[in-house]
Amino acid sequence: MIPVTPLITLTTDLGEQDGFIGSMKGVIIGINPSARIVDISHDVPPQDIEAGAYVIKEAYKLFPKLTIHVVVVDPGVGGPRKPLLAVSQNYYFIAPDNGVLSYVYKEEGSVRVYELSATHYFRPSPGRTFHGRDIFAPIAAWLSKGVSPDNLGKDVEGFVTLTLPHPVAVAEKTMKGRVAYIDRFGNLITTITKAHLDELFLKSSGKTVEVKVKEVVIKGLSDYYGQGEKGTPSALVNSSGYLEIFCHLGSARDILKAGRGDDVTLTVL
Amino acid sequence: MIPVTPLITLTTDLGEQDGFIGSMKGVIIGINPSARIVDISHDVPPQDIEAGAYVIKEAYKLFPKLTIHVVVVDPGVGGPRKPLLAVSQNYYFIAPDNGVLSYVYKEEGSVRVYELSATHYFRPSPGRTFHGRDIFAPIAAWLSKGVSPDNLGKDVEGFVTLTLPHPVAVAEKTMKGRVAYIDRFGNLITTITKAHLDELFLKSSGKTVEVKVKEVVIKGLSDYYGQGEKGTPSALVNSSGYLEIFCHLGSARDILKAGRGDDVTLTVL
Amino acid sequence: MIPVTPLITLTTDLGEQDGFIGSMKGVIIGINPSARIVDISHDVPPQDIEAGAYVIKEAYKLFPKLTIHVVVVDPGVGGPRKPLLAVSQNYYFIAPDNGVLSYVYKEEGSVRVYELSATHYFRPSPGRTFHGRDIFAPIAAWLSKGVSPDNLGKDVEGFVTLTLPHPVAVAEKTMKGRVAYIDRFGNLITTITKAHLDELFLKSSGKTVEVKVKEVVIKGLSDYYGQGEKGTPSALVNSSGYLEIFCHLGSARDILKAGRGDDVTLTVL
Repeated sequence: MIPVTPLITLTTDLGEQDGFIGSMKGVIIGINPSARIVDISHDVPPQDIEAGAYVIKEAYKLFPKLTIHVVVVDPGVGGPRKPLLAVSQNYYFIAPDNGVLSYVYKEEGSVRVYELSATHYFRPSPGRTFHGRDIFAPIAAWLSKGVSPDNLGKDVEGFVTLTLPHPVAVAEKTMKGRVAYIDRFGNLITTITKAHLDELFLKSSGKTVEVKVKEVVIKGLSDYYGQGEKGTPSALVNSSGYLEIFCHLGSARDILKAGRGDDVTLTVL
Repeated sequence: MIPVTPLITLTTDLGEQDGFIGSMKGVIIGINPSARIVDISHDVPPQDIEAGAYVIKEAYKLFPKLTIHVVVVDPGVGGPRKPLLAVSQNYYFIAPDNGVLSYVYKEEGSVRVYELSATHYFRPSPGRTFHGRDIFAPIAAWLSKGVSPDNLGKDVEGFVTLTLPHPVAVAEKTMKGRVAYIDRFGNLITTITKAHLDELFLKSSGKTVEVKVKEVVIKGLSDYYGQGEKGTPSALVNSSGYLEIFCHLGSARDILKAGRGDDVTLTVL
Repeated sequence: MIPVTPLITLTTDLGEQDGFIGSMKGVIIGINPSARIVDISHDVPPQDIEAGAYVIKEAYKLFPKLTIHVVVVDPGVGGPRKPLLAVSQNYYFIAPDNGVLSYVYKEEGSVRVYELSATHYFRPSPGRTFHGRDIFAPIAAWLSKGVSPDNLGKDVEGFVTLTLPHPVAVAEKTMKGRVAYIDRFGNLITTITKAHLDELFLKSSGKTVEVKVKEVVIKGLSDYYGQGEKGTPSALVNSSGYLEIFCHLGSARDILKAGRGDDVTLTVL
């Protein structure tokens, strides 16, 4: 089934300066003028597969069913890594096999994964440095025109998944997680979810929490950013259900000198 | 009356890296696949309400009537500040009540302002950190489908307006204004307009002008950037009718170490 | 002949922060609501005509025939430089006459160039600082509605072309080129093409190559980025057919402290 206006999203680390994205869009429109193209991000930090995996996870579910999500963070382009098409119940994902779809695999559950092998749907003589333009864009366009996944590739058994950071209980009332992503405002999004928090509260007779990051202890949770004291690290549960450390009208990353992967400890008191 | 292709513009400080804008677009398209979405800016400096107010002022009137302008610079998200819909004779504006529409209120004159209160048009269980996705985007989409403003909220009496910088006459032939905005090229756009300039000339028998900023005196006005001496501060009236200080093939901001709010004095000689 | 959905691309140095691009799109849509607008780049380095020329060269051919490409890198805006419309067999180009179409003229071969002089198709009272909004955008929109080039301007004889860097043979087996462009990843794209390389091999009995840049000698070519040693300068022929110097998982620009125009020497051994 093809939507009347098929939707293709782009998530890449290709940046906005060089016209790479324009080239991909030209290729898509050349094949399927009816396709609607929406940018999710082109400023994933260069070659940062984990960041790309996080960005597509946060956005993909907000799109209508049958949307085709193209994800190009691809430091291994042109080498042995496979180009993939992953088909879940609701969405299509086109990406290199380097783990950039790891969160998607986890959240979508049942996913059928194809290696893109129907080279006649690629651009003629694709080079080995820009598969976004030469392979992923045309495949997305042909898929959006109704070409069946079975005609675009063949099933693969194994595919790469990142070892995703996962919070662990380190004591009855304490859980240790990590900074999973840092956004444009310098907010630290952690791996600890509202579900984890609720579980800790349920198991204990606790009434409040302490969050520890970079030797700083944050007491209690805010309901929204404006409740935090200006310039002071604070914490809340964000709109995606994750524990997030922020500084009202400032950058928690800069103030705490924090980075992705830093430990975050949550204790219910 | 709904345009055949309803138009929604987005002006935000959400940046291009994290996929926030992609999420908002996914929500809009999910509700109204016919909506056309145009980005005005997503690189308003983080949480800089005054800059956001300036950016939407410069762009909104260039769009067709009935365009829906969504403006999300929202450091108070999730707190007591109200989400608004402002309806003028020609346009709709959806924004938080923090003054980001101040220039719009001033330029549009008669504006009816609603507090968005019809929560059944929000995303289910909106969080308190991303109203761009959970409130502003869906409201824009429903409005674009023809839902009446009266069904989206209720009239508010007071709403926040910034104290906008306003030039003042400090002597018969002298007017003092401020740097209102600094653009990507480092040009300093001032609060002094061509109308102010014409008035000064009319009142005096002056023939030329001096512009003073950061202890530097610029003599005379250029007609266009290329008339300025390379690397030297110069001034002209820009295409929006404002006095602007520039450096041909350079950045006036960097050369003058200027910032928004700096005094600018105009004297007719 | 007008396509059902006429396509207009935008390549500029206007940046994403100030809403300039939003203004241009508002003008286009106001004139021709059917036009589809695709961004190629808005982050060409400010006033860098040569970089803009490179970016449009890389992207324009990937779009369908009859696409209208608008290129605004325009430090001379408002001055004597002419606004142009260039018509090739397949595409339209709208740009200032400052050399930003130099690669296009070379690659398209036969091009008819008009000076845009039909001021009634401009925005009323265009200023002298933002022809992107006041001249180039409306002309693109009217062209996309089917107005003939003959009604938009008059033929010009001379137009500005940059002296494009061109590789030269400096010995029987050695060719000297230059860095023509540096992309977002810090890759150095040179003026030396695969054709040059093939010619050198053909003329000599060589089996491998040495590439010299900034006193560093790179032995042999990689097939793809991942073959390079991490953090070490390597070279390959990229997907556009140019010799490119890169550092796998790093930036060749930063590691070599290289800039556009730097010499690159290729020797067949």
